[in-house]
Amino acid sequence: MKTAIYQFAPAFGAKEKNLQKIEKTLLQTDVDLVVLPELCTTGYQFTSQKELDDLAESIPGSPTVESWSQLCQKKGFHLVAGLAEKDGDQFFNSAVLIGPEGYIGTYRKVHLFLDEKKWFQSGCSFHVWDIEKAKIGIMICFDWIFPEAARSLALQGAEIICHPVNLVLPYCQDAMITRSIENRVFTVTANRIGIEERVKDNPLTFTGGSQIVDPKGQRLFRLGAKVEAFQEMDIHVTKARDKQITAKNHIFYDRNPKVYQS
Amino acid sequence: MKTAIYQFAPAFGAKEKNLQKIEKTLLQTDVDLVVLPELCTTGYQFTSQKELDDLAESIPGSPTVESWSQLCQKKGFHLVAGLAEKDGDQFFNSAVLIGPEGYIGTYRKVHLFLDEKKWFQSGCSFHVWDIEKAKIGIMICFDWIFPEAARSLALQGAEIICHPVNLVLPYCQDAMITRSIENRVFTVTANRIGIEERVKDNPLTFTGGSQIVDPKGQRLFRLGAKVEAFQEMDIHVTKARDKQITAKNHIFYDRNPKVYQS
Repeated sequence: MKTAIYQFAPAFGAKEKNLQKIEKTLLQTDVDLVVLPELCTTGYQFTSQKELDDLAESIPGSPTVESWSQLCQKKGFHLVAGLAEKDGDQFFNSAVLIGPEGYIGTYRKVHLFLDEKKWFQSGCSFHVWDIEKAKIGIMICFDWIFPEAARSLALQGAEIICHPVNLVLPYCQDAMITRSIENRVFTVTANRIGIEERVKDNPLTFTGGSQIVDPKGQRLFRLGAKVEAFQEMDIHVTKARDKQITAKNHIFYDRNPKVYQS
Repeated sequence: MKTAIYQFAPAFGAKEKNLQKIEKTLLQTDVDLVVLPELCTTGYQFTSQKELDDLAESIPGSPTVESWSQLCQKKGFHLVAGLAEKDGDQFFNSAVLIGPEGYIGTYRKVHLFLDEKKWFQSGCSFHVWDIEKAKIGIMICFDWIFPEAARSLALQGAEIICHPVNLVLPYCQDAMITRSIENRVFTVTANRIGIEERVKDNPLTFTGGSQIVDPKGQRLFRLGAKVEAFQEMDIHVTKARDKQITAKNHIFYDRNPKVYQS
Protein backbone atom coordinates (compact mmCIF):
# COMPACT_ATOMS: atom_id res chain seq x y z
CA MET A 1 0.00 0.00 0.00
CA LYS A 2 1.71 3.14 -1.24
CA THR A 3 1.51 5.63 1.62
CA ALA A 4 2.73 9.18 1.31
CA ILE A 5 3.29 12.38 3.21
CA TYR A 6 3.30 15.86 1.72
CA GLN A 7 5.37 18.15 3.96
CA PHE A 8 5.14 21.82 3.04
CA ALA A 9 4.57 25.32 4.47
CA PRO A 10 0.94 26.46 4.25
CA ALA A 11 0.61 30.23 3.89
CA PHE A 12 -1.51 31.63 6.72
CA GLY A 13 -5.06 32.49 5.67
CA ALA A 14 -4.43 31.79 1.99
CA LYS A 15 -6.77 28.84 1.57
CA GLU A 16 -7.07 29.04 -2.20
CA LYS A 17 -3.33 29.25 -2.63
CA ASN A 18 -2.70 26.34 -0.25
CA LEU A 19 -5.35 24.19 -1.89
CA GLN A 20 -3.91 24.88 -5.35
CA LYS A 21 -0.44 23.98 -4.12
CA ILE A 22 -1.70 20.72 -2.61
CA GLU A 23 -3.65 19.85 -5.72
CA LYS A 24 -0.77 20.62 -8.06
CA THR A 25 1.51 18.31 -6.07
CA LEU A 26 -0.93 15.48 -5.54
CA LEU A 27 -2.07 15.41 -9.18
CA GLN A 28 1.40 14.23 -10.12
CA THR A 29 1.43 11.27 -7.74
CA ASP A 30 0.40 7.62 -7.91
CA VAL A 31 -0.25 6.36 -4.38
CA ASP A 32 -2.96 4.76 -2.21
CA LEU A 33 -2.96 7.04 0.83
CA VAL A 34 -1.73 10.60 1.39
CA VAL A 35 -1.41 12.32 4.77
CA LEU A 36 -1.17 16.12 4.98
CA PRO A 37 -0.29 18.28 8.01
CA GLU A 38 -2.62 19.69 10.67
CA LEU A 39 -4.57 22.84 9.65
CA CYS A 40 -2.93 22.61 6.24
CA THR A 41 -5.34 24.89 4.39
CA THR A 42 -5.39 27.79 6.86
CA GLY A 43 -2.09 27.85 8.73
CA TYR A 44 -1.81 27.51 12.49
CA GLN A 45 -1.51 30.67 14.51
CA PHE A 46 -4.92 32.34 14.76
CA THR A 47 -5.10 35.71 16.49
CA SER A 48 -8.86 36.12 16.88
CA GLN A 49 -12.06 34.12 16.81
CA LYS A 50 -13.22 36.20 13.88
CA GLU A 51 -10.19 35.14 11.87
CA LEU A 52 -10.94 31.48 12.57
CA ASP A 53 -14.63 32.01 11.83
CA ASP A 54 -13.74 33.40 8.40
CA LEU A 55 -11.46 30.44 7.58
CA ALA A 56 -13.20 27.45 9.18
CA GLU A 57 -15.59 25.27 7.17
CA SER A 58 -18.62 23.11 7.86
CA ILE A 59 -17.89 19.45 7.18
CA PRO A 60 -18.90 17.75 4.97
CA GLY A 61 -19.95 19.82 1.99
CA SER A 62 -17.43 22.59 2.37
CA PRO A 63 -15.44 23.86 -0.61
CA THR A 64 -12.24 22.25 0.68
CA VAL A 65 -13.83 18.86 1.27
CA GLU A 66 -15.52 19.06 -2.14
CA SER A 67 -12.25 19.94 -3.81
CA TRP A 68 -10.39 17.12 -2.05
CA SER A 69 -13.17 14.67 -2.86
CA GLN A 70 -12.77 15.43 -6.55
CA LEU A 71 -9.02 15.02 -6.24
CA CYS A 72 -9.42 11.64 -4.50
CA GLN A 73 -11.88 10.50 -7.16
CA LYS A 74 -9.59 11.60 -9.97
CA LYS A 75 -6.47 9.98 -8.47
CA GLY A 76 -8.08 7.00 -6.74
CA PHE A 77 -6.35 7.56 -3.42
CA HIS A 78 -7.44 8.13 0.16
CA LEU A 79 -6.52 11.40 1.84
CA VAL A 80 -6.14 12.39 5.50
CA ALA A 81 -5.71 16.12 6.00
CA GLY A 82 -6.06 18.65 8.79
CA LEU A 83 -8.38 21.64 8.55
CA ALA A 84 -10.33 24.08 10.72
CA GLU A 85 -13.92 22.94 11.22
CA LYS A 86 -16.98 25.02 12.10
CA ASP A 87 -20.11 23.36 13.49
CA GLY A 88 -22.73 25.96 14.45
CA ASP A 89 -20.91 28.21 16.88
CA GLN A 90 -18.30 25.61 17.74
CA PHE A 91 -14.88 25.20 16.18
CA PHE A 92 -12.68 22.12 15.98
CA ASN A 93 -9.10 21.39 14.98
CA SER A 94 -10.08 18.49 12.73
CA ALA A 95 -8.83 16.08 10.13
CA VAL A 96 -10.91 14.50 7.40
CA LEU A 97 -10.66 11.12 5.73
CA ILE A 98 -11.74 11.19 2.10
CA GLY A 99 -11.60 8.43 -0.50
CA PRO A 100 -12.31 7.89 -4.19
CA GLU A 101 -16.03 7.67 -3.34
CA GLY A 102 -15.94 10.93 -1.42
CA TYR A 103 -16.04 12.08 2.19
CA ILE A 104 -15.72 9.29 4.81
CA GLY A 105 -15.31 10.86 8.24
CA THR A 106 -13.84 13.48 10.55
CA TYR A 107 -11.65 13.31 13.63
CA ARG A 108 -11.81 16.28 16.01
CA LYS A 109 -8.59 16.78 18.02
CA VAL A 110 -9.11 15.66 21.60
CA HIS A 111 -6.01 17.16 23.27
CA LEU A 112 -5.63 20.84 22.42
CA PHE A 113 -2.24 22.53 22.73
CA LEU A 114 -1.75 25.93 24.37
CA ASP A 115 -3.67 28.73 22.58
CA GLU A 116 -5.70 26.24 20.57
CA LYS A 117 -7.79 26.17 23.74
CA LYS A 118 -8.78 29.77 23.04
CA TRP A 119 -10.22 29.00 19.64
CA PHE A 120 -11.26 25.37 19.51
CA GLN A 121 -13.43 22.94 21.44
CA SER A 122 -12.02 19.50 22.24
CA GLY A 123 -13.19 16.50 20.28
CA CYS A 124 -14.79 13.69 22.22
CA SER A 125 -14.02 10.43 20.43
CA PHE A 126 -11.46 8.41 18.54
CA HIS A 127 -12.57 6.67 15.35
CA VAL A 128 -11.25 3.91 13.12
CA TRP A 129 -12.40 3.56 9.52
CA ASP A 130 -12.07 0.43 7.40
CA ILE A 131 -11.08 1.49 3.88
CA GLU A 132 -10.60 -2.16 2.80
CA LYS A 133 -6.89 -1.84 2.12
CA ALA A 134 -6.36 -0.92 5.79
CA LYS A 135 -8.05 0.21 8.97
CA ILE A 136 -7.30 3.89 9.46
CA GLY A 137 -7.16 5.78 12.75
CA ILE A 138 -6.49 9.50 13.03
CA MET A 139 -4.97 11.54 15.82
CA ILE A 140 -3.66 15.10 15.60
CA CYS A 141 -0.36 16.55 16.81
CA PHE A 142 -0.35 16.95 20.64
CA ASP A 143 -2.44 13.79 21.00
CA TRP A 144 0.95 12.04 20.72
CA ILE A 145 1.93 12.81 24.31
CA PHE A 146 -1.08 10.94 25.71
CA PRO A 147 -0.50 7.21 25.18
CA GLU A 148 -4.25 6.69 25.51
CA ALA A 149 -4.82 8.32 22.11
CA ALA A 150 -2.87 5.86 19.97
CA ARG A 151 -3.96 3.05 22.31
CA SER A 152 -7.64 3.91 21.81
CA LEU A 153 -7.16 3.74 18.05
CA ALA A 154 -5.16 0.51 18.14
CA LEU A 155 -7.67 -1.20 20.43
CA GLN A 156 -10.35 -0.32 17.86
CA GLY A 157 -8.30 -2.08 15.22
CA ALA A 158 -6.34 0.75 13.61
CA GLU A 159 -3.51 -0.58 11.45
CA ILE A 160 -2.29 2.78 10.22
CA ILE A 161 -2.46 5.79 12.53
CA CYS A 162 -2.47 8.92 10.39
CA HIS A 163 -1.07 11.82 12.39
CA PRO A 164 -1.29 15.31 10.91
CA VAL A 165 0.86 17.65 13.01
CA ASN A 166 2.17 21.21 13.32
CA LEU A 167 5.12 20.47 15.59
CA VAL A 168 7.33 23.11 17.11
CA LEU A 169 9.05 20.84 19.68
CA PRO A 170 11.52 18.00 19.00
CA TYR A 171 10.10 15.16 21.14
CA CYS A 172 7.24 13.79 19.10
CA GLN A 173 9.01 11.96 16.31
CA ASP A 174 10.96 9.68 18.63
CA ALA A 175 7.92 9.14 20.84
CA MET A 176 5.96 7.97 17.78
CA ILE A 177 8.43 5.09 17.51
CA THR A 178 7.24 4.05 20.96
CA ARG A 179 3.60 4.48 19.87
CA SER A 180 4.23 2.13 16.94
CA ILE A 181 6.00 -0.47 19.07
CA GLU A 182 3.52 -0.50 21.95
CA ASN A 183 0.56 -0.91 19.57
CA ARG A 184 2.25 -2.68 16.66
CA VAL A 185 0.81 -0.24 14.13
CA PHE A 186 2.15 1.98 11.39
CA THR A 187 2.29 5.64 12.38
CA VAL A 188 2.37 8.30 9.67
CA THR A 189 3.32 11.69 11.11
CA ALA A 190 2.90 14.51 8.58
CA ASN A 191 4.42 17.76 9.81
CA ARG A 192 4.65 21.18 8.17
CA ILE A 193 7.67 23.42 7.76
CA GLY A 194 8.12 27.18 7.79
CA ILE A 195 7.69 29.99 10.27
CA GLU A 196 4.62 31.89 11.44
CA GLU A 197 5.20 35.24 13.12
CA ARG A 198 1.65 36.39 13.63
CA VAL A 199 1.91 36.99 17.40
CA LYS A 200 4.46 39.49 18.72
CA ASP A 201 7.35 37.84 20.57
CA ASN A 202 6.00 34.38 19.75
CA PRO A 203 7.27 33.28 16.35
CA LEU A 204 6.59 29.61 15.64
CA THR A 205 9.13 27.54 13.73
CA PHE A 206 7.66 24.27 12.54
CA THR A 207 10.12 21.44 12.60
CA GLY A 208 9.36 19.15 9.66
CA GLY A 209 10.82 15.69 10.22
CA SER A 210 7.72 13.96 8.86
CA GLN A 211 8.08 10.20 9.09
CA ILE A 212 6.56 6.76 8.79
CA VAL A 213 7.31 4.17 11.48
CA ASP A 214 6.49 0.47 11.06
CA PRO A 215 4.83 -1.77 13.71
CA LYS A 216 8.19 -2.92 15.05
CA GLY A 217 9.44 0.61 15.56
CA GLN A 218 11.57 0.91 12.45
CA ARG A 219 11.53 4.44 11.04
CA LEU A 220 11.04 3.93 7.31
CA PHE A 221 11.97 7.51 6.49
CA ARG A 222 12.25 10.90 8.12
CA LEU A 223 12.21 14.11 6.10
CA GLY A 224 14.46 17.06 6.84
CA ALA A 225 13.46 19.92 9.12
CA LYS A 226 13.15 22.54 6.38
CA VAL A 227 12.54 20.71 3.13
CA GLU A 228 9.30 20.75 1.18
CA ALA A 229 8.80 17.17 0.03
CA PHE A 230 6.33 14.57 -1.15
CA GLN A 231 7.60 11.22 0.11
CA GLU A 232 5.97 7.87 -0.51
CA MET A 233 6.71 4.42 0.89
CA ASP A 234 5.23 1.04 0.02
CA ILE A 235 4.09 -0.43 3.34
CA HIS A 236 2.80 -3.93 4.07
CA VAL A 237 -0.30 -3.43 6.19
CA THR A 238 -0.41 -7.10 7.21
CA LYS A 239 2.57 -6.38 9.47
CA ALA A 240 0.21 -4.36 11.67
CA ARG A 241 -2.11 -7.35 12.02
CA ASP A 242 0.54 -9.46 13.75
CA LYS A 243 0.18 -8.50 17.40
CA GLN A 244 2.35 -11.35 18.63
CA ILE A 245 5.52 -9.88 20.17
CA THR A 246 6.96 -13.32 20.94
CA ALA A 247 5.54 -16.84 20.71
CA LYS A 248 4.05 -16.27 24.17
CA ASN A 249 3.41 -12.52 24.25
CA HIS A 250 0.57 -10.66 22.54
CA ILE A 251 0.53 -6.87 22.63
CA PHE A 252 -3.18 -6.79 23.57
CA TYR A 253 -3.97 -10.13 25.22
CA ASP A 254 -1.09 -9.62 27.67
CA ARG A 255 -2.67 -6.42 28.91
CA ASN A 256 -4.38 -6.57 32.30
CA PRO A 257 -6.81 -3.62 32.40
CA LYS A 258 -8.15 -4.67 35.82
CA VAL A 259 -4.88 -3.59 37.45
CA TYR A 260 -4.44 -0.35 35.50
CA GLN A 261 -5.29 3.07 36.87
CA SER A 262 -7.17 5.22 34.40
CA MET B 1 18.72 13.06 45.78
CA LYS B 2 21.66 10.88 44.83
CA THR B 3 20.22 8.07 42.74
CA ALA B 4 22.34 5.19 41.51
CA ILE B 5 22.30 2.09 39.36
CA TYR B 6 24.54 -0.91 39.79
CA GLN B 7 24.85 -2.73 36.45
CA PHE B 8 26.59 -6.10 36.68
CA ALA B 9 26.35 -9.77 35.64
CA PRO B 10 24.75 -11.97 38.31
CA ALA B 11 26.04 -15.53 38.22
CA PHE B 12 23.17 -18.00 37.74
CA GLY B 13 22.15 -19.78 40.93
CA ALA B 14 25.03 -18.34 42.98
CA LYS B 15 22.97 -16.29 45.42
CA GLU B 16 25.66 -15.97 48.08
CA LYS B 17 28.26 -14.89 45.57
CA ASN B 18 25.91 -12.35 43.97
CA LEU B 19 24.87 -10.95 47.34
CA GLN B 20 28.49 -10.57 48.41
CA LYS B 21 29.34 -8.80 45.16
CA ILE B 22 26.42 -6.42 45.60
CA GLU B 23 27.29 -5.75 49.24
CA LYS B 24 30.96 -5.16 48.51
CA THR B 25 30.08 -2.59 45.86
CA LEU B 26 27.31 -0.81 47.73
CA LEU B 27 29.32 -0.55 50.97
CA GLN B 28 31.69 1.81 49.19
CA THR B 29 28.96 4.22 48.06
CA ASP B 30 27.29 7.31 49.46
CA VAL B 31 23.88 7.72 47.86
CA ASP B 32 20.16 8.00 48.69
CA LEU B 33 18.66 5.41 46.36
CA VAL B 34 20.13 2.40 44.54
CA VAL B 35 18.38 0.38 41.84
CA LEU B 36 19.61 -3.12 40.95
CA PRO B 37 18.57 -5.32 38.00
CA GLU B 38 15.70 -7.81 37.77
CA LEU B 39 16.33 -11.23 39.41
CA CYS B 40 19.74 -9.96 40.46
CA THR B 41 20.45 -12.58 43.12
CA THR B 42 19.52 -15.68 41.09
CA GLY B 43 20.09 -14.95 37.42
CA TYR B 44 17.38 -15.12 34.81
CA GLN B 45 17.09 -18.29 32.78
CA PHE B 46 15.44 -20.97 34.92
CA THR B 47 15.16 -24.44 33.41
CA SER B 48 12.80 -26.12 35.89
CA GLN B 49 10.30 -25.27 38.60
CA LYS B 50 12.50 -27.14 41.06
CA GLU B 51 15.41 -24.85 40.28
CA LEU B 52 13.24 -21.80 40.92
CA ASP B 53 11.80 -23.37 44.07
CA ASP B 54 15.32 -23.84 45.44
CA LEU B 55 16.30 -20.22 44.74
CA ALA B 56 13.14 -18.24 45.43
CA GLU B 57 12.49 -16.67 48.84
CA SER B 58 9.50 -15.74 50.96
CA ILE B 59 9.23 -11.99 51.43
CA PRO B 60 9.73 -10.40 53.86
CA GLY B 61 11.99 -12.22 56.30
CA SER B 62 14.09 -14.05 53.76
CA PRO B 63 17.90 -14.11 54.04
CA THR B 64 18.29 -11.77 51.05
CA VAL B 65 15.82 -9.22 52.36
CA GLU B 66 17.41 -9.41 55.83
CA SER B 67 20.87 -8.93 54.35
CA TRP B 68 19.73 -5.96 52.24
CA SER B 69 17.88 -4.45 55.20
CA GLN B 70 21.11 -4.45 57.22
CA LEU B 71 22.95 -2.90 54.29
CA CYS B 72 20.32 -0.15 53.95
CA GLN B 73 20.47 0.52 57.68
CA LYS B 74 24.25 0.70 57.65
CA LYS B 75 24.43 2.97 54.60
CA GLY B 76 21.25 4.97 55.12
CA PHE B 77 19.98 4.48 51.57
CA HIS B 78 16.88 3.03 49.95
CA LEU B 79 17.25 0.03 47.68
CA VAL B 80 15.08 -1.34 44.87
CA ALA B 81 16.18 -4.76 43.66
CA GLY B 82 14.74 -7.65 41.70
CA LEU B 83 14.53 -11.17 43.13
CA ALA B 84 12.57 -14.42 42.80
CA GLU B 85 9.71 -14.58 45.31
CA LYS B 86 7.95 -17.65 46.68
CA ASP B 87 4.53 -17.32 48.36
CA GLY B 88 3.14 -20.72 49.29
CA ASP B 89 3.16 -22.63 46.03
CA GLN B 90 3.18 -19.50 43.92
CA PHE B 91 6.22 -17.77 42.45
CA PHE B 92 6.64 -14.15 41.39
CA ASN B 93 9.24 -12.17 39.51
CA SER B 94 9.39 -9.43 42.14
CA ALA B 95 11.28 -6.37 43.27
CA VAL B 96 11.55 -5.15 46.85
CA LEU B 97 11.83 -1.65 48.25
CA ILE B 98 13.91 -1.51 51.42
CA GLY B 99 15.03 1.53 53.43
CA PRO B 100 17.17 2.35 56.46
CA GLU B 101 14.27 1.23 58.68
CA GLY B 102 13.98 -2.08 56.87
CA TYR B 103 11.61 -3.74 54.41
CA ILE B 104 8.96 -1.46 52.90
CA GLY B 105 7.17 -3.31 50.10
CA THR B 106 7.17 -5.63 47.12
CA TYR B 107 6.11 -5.24 43.51
CA ARG B 108 5.23 -8.42 41.61
CA LYS B 109 5.79 -8.17 37.86
CA VAL B 110 2.46 -7.84 36.05
CA HIS B 111 3.53 -8.47 32.45
CA LEU B 112 5.59 -11.65 32.16
CA PHE B 113 7.91 -12.18 29.18
CA LEU B 114 8.10 -15.44 27.23
CA ASP B 115 9.20 -18.40 29.39
CA GLU B 116 8.69 -16.44 32.59
CA LYS B 117 5.09 -17.54 32.08
CA LYS B 118 6.21 -21.11 32.72
CA TRP B 119 7.63 -20.32 36.13
CA PHE B 120 5.92 -17.26 37.56
CA GLN B 121 2.42 -16.00 38.27
CA SER B 122 1.55 -12.45 37.21
CA GLY B 123 1.33 -9.74 39.82
CA CYS B 124 -1.96 -7.94 40.17
CA SER B 125 -1.25 -4.36 41.26
CA PHE B 126 1.00 -1.35 40.88
CA HIS B 127 2.15 0.40 44.06
CA VAL B 128 3.67 3.74 44.97
CA TRP B 129 5.53 4.24 48.23
CA ASP B 130 6.29 7.61 49.82
CA ILE B 131 9.81 7.49 51.22
CA GLU B 132 9.71 11.21 52.11
CA LYS B 133 12.49 12.22 49.75
CA ALA B 134 10.39 10.95 46.86
CA LYS B 135 7.42 8.86 45.85
CA ILE B 136 8.70 5.60 44.42
CA GLY B 137 6.97 3.37 41.90
CA ILE B 138 8.35 0.10 40.64
CA MET B 139 7.85 -1.75 37.39
CA ILE B 140 9.94 -4.61 36.01
CA CYS B 141 11.44 -5.08 32.55
CA PHE B 142 8.73 -6.04 29.98
CA ASP B 143 6.21 -3.82 31.79
CA TRP B 144 7.85 -1.06 29.72
CA ILE B 145 6.00 -1.99 26.52
CA PHE B 146 2.59 -1.45 28.12
CA PRO B 147 2.11 2.30 28.61
CA GLU B 148 -0.50 1.51 31.25
CA ALA B 149 2.22 0.32 33.65
CA ALA B 150 4.14 3.58 33.98
CA ARG B 151 0.85 5.49 33.67
CA SER B 152 -0.65 3.58 36.61
CA LEU B 153 2.36 4.47 38.74
CA ALA B 154 2.42 8.11 37.69
CA LEU B 155 -1.31 8.54 38.31
CA GLN B 156 -0.70 7.25 41.84
CA GLY B 157 1.89 9.95 42.30
CA ALA B 158 5.16 8.21 41.48
CA GLU B 159 7.98 10.70 40.98
CA ILE B 160 10.71 8.14 40.37
CA ILE B 161 9.87 4.93 38.54
CA CYS B 162 12.47 2.33 39.48
CA HIS B 163 12.77 -0.21 36.69
CA PRO B 164 14.86 -3.32 37.29
CA VAL B 165 15.34 -5.13 33.97
CA ASN B 166 17.05 -8.07 32.26
CA LEU B 167 16.86 -6.77 28.71
CA VAL B 168 17.88 -8.74 25.66
CA LEU B 169 16.25 -6.47 23.05
CA PRO B 170 17.26 -2.93 22.08
CA TYR B 171 13.92 -1.07 22.17
CA CYS B 172 13.31 -0.40 25.84
CA GLN B 173 15.79 2.32 26.62
CA ASP B 174 14.48 4.74 24.00
CA ALA B 175 10.89 3.90 24.91
CA MET B 176 11.64 4.83 28.53
CA ILE B 177 12.34 8.37 27.31
CA THR B 178 8.73 8.42 26.09
CA ARG B 179 7.56 7.00 29.44
CA SER B 180 9.33 9.84 31.25
CA ILE B 181 7.94 12.52 28.95
CA GLU B 182 4.35 11.29 28.90
CA ASN B 183 4.24 11.08 32.72
CA ARG B 184 6.82 13.75 33.65
CA VAL B 185 8.64 11.38 35.99
CA PHE B 186 12.18 10.16 36.44
CA THR B 187 12.73 6.64 35.14
CA VAL B 188 15.64 4.60 36.45
CA THR B 189 16.24 1.53 34.29
CA ALA B 190 18.80 -0.86 35.82
CA ASN B 191 19.83 -3.59 33.40
CA ARG B 192 22.30 -6.43 33.80
CA ILE B 193 25.10 -7.48 31.47
CA GLY B 194 26.59 -10.85 30.57
CA ILE B 195 25.41 -13.99 28.81
CA GLU B 196 23.35 -16.94 30.05
CA GLU B 197 23.55 -20.14 28.03
CA ARG B 198 21.47 -22.44 30.15
CA VAL B 199 19.02 -23.50 27.41
CA LYS B 200 20.35 -25.19 24.30
CA ASP B 201 20.15 -23.00 21.18
CA ASN B 202 18.80 -20.09 23.23
CA PRO B 203 21.71 -18.12 24.68
CA LEU B 204 20.65 -14.82 26.21
CA THR B 205 22.89 -11.78 25.87
CA PHE B 206 21.83 -9.02 28.24
CA THR B 207 22.31 -5.59 26.79
CA GLY B 208 23.29 -3.25 29.63
CA GLY B 209 22.61 0.36 28.70
CA SER B 210 21.24 1.18 32.15
CA GLN B 211 20.03 4.75 32.30
CA ILE B 212 18.26 7.53 34.15
CA VAL B 213 15.85 9.79 32.23
CA ASP B 214 14.48 13.03 33.67
CA PRO B 215 10.82 14.17 33.51
CA LYS B 216 11.42 16.14 30.32
CA GLY B 217 12.93 13.17 28.54
CA GLN B 218 16.58 14.08 28.94
CA ARG B 219 18.72 10.97 29.33
CA LEU B 220 21.06 11.85 32.21
CA PHE B 221 23.40 8.94 31.52
CA ARG B 222 23.43 5.63 29.72
CA LEU B 223 25.95 2.92 30.59
CA GLY B 224 27.69 0.79 28.00
CA ALA B 225 26.37 -2.56 26.81
CA LYS B 226 29.06 -4.67 28.43
CA VAL B 227 30.52 -2.66 31.29
CA GLU B 228 30.06 -3.44 34.97
CA ALA B 229 29.46 -0.09 36.63
CA PHE B 230 28.04 1.70 39.63
CA GLN B 231 26.77 5.05 38.35
CA GLU B 232 25.16 7.75 40.48
CA MET B 233 23.42 10.99 39.54
CA ASP B 234 22.11 13.79 41.72
CA ILE B 235 18.51 14.28 40.63
CA HIS B 236 16.06 17.00 41.63
CA VAL B 237 12.84 15.22 42.47
CA THR B 238 10.83 18.44 42.45
CA LYS B 239 11.12 18.39 38.66
CA ALA B 240 8.78 15.39 38.67
CA ARG B 241 6.17 17.38 40.61
CA ASP B 242 5.77 19.94 37.85
CA LYS B 243 3.16 18.37 35.59
CA GLN B 244 2.60 21.55 33.60
CA ILE B 245 3.80 20.99 30.03
CA THR B 246 2.94 24.54 28.97
CA ALA B 247 1.13 27.39 30.74
CA LYS B 248 -2.12 25.84 29.49
CA ASN B 249 -1.33 22.14 29.34
CA HIS B 250 -1.13 19.73 32.27
CA ILE B 251 -0.01 16.16 31.65
CA PHE B 252 -2.82 14.73 33.77
CA TYR B 253 -5.60 17.35 33.80
CA ASP B 254 -5.55 17.44 29.99
CA ARG B 255 -6.38 13.75 29.86
CA ASN B 256 -9.93 12.82 28.93
CA PRO B 257 -10.48 9.26 30.22
CA LYS B 258 -14.13 9.29 29.15
CA VAL B 259 -13.06 9.09 25.51
CA TYR B 260 -10.31 6.50 25.94
CA GLN B 261 -10.71 2.82 25.13
CA SER B 262 -9.30 0.58 27.83
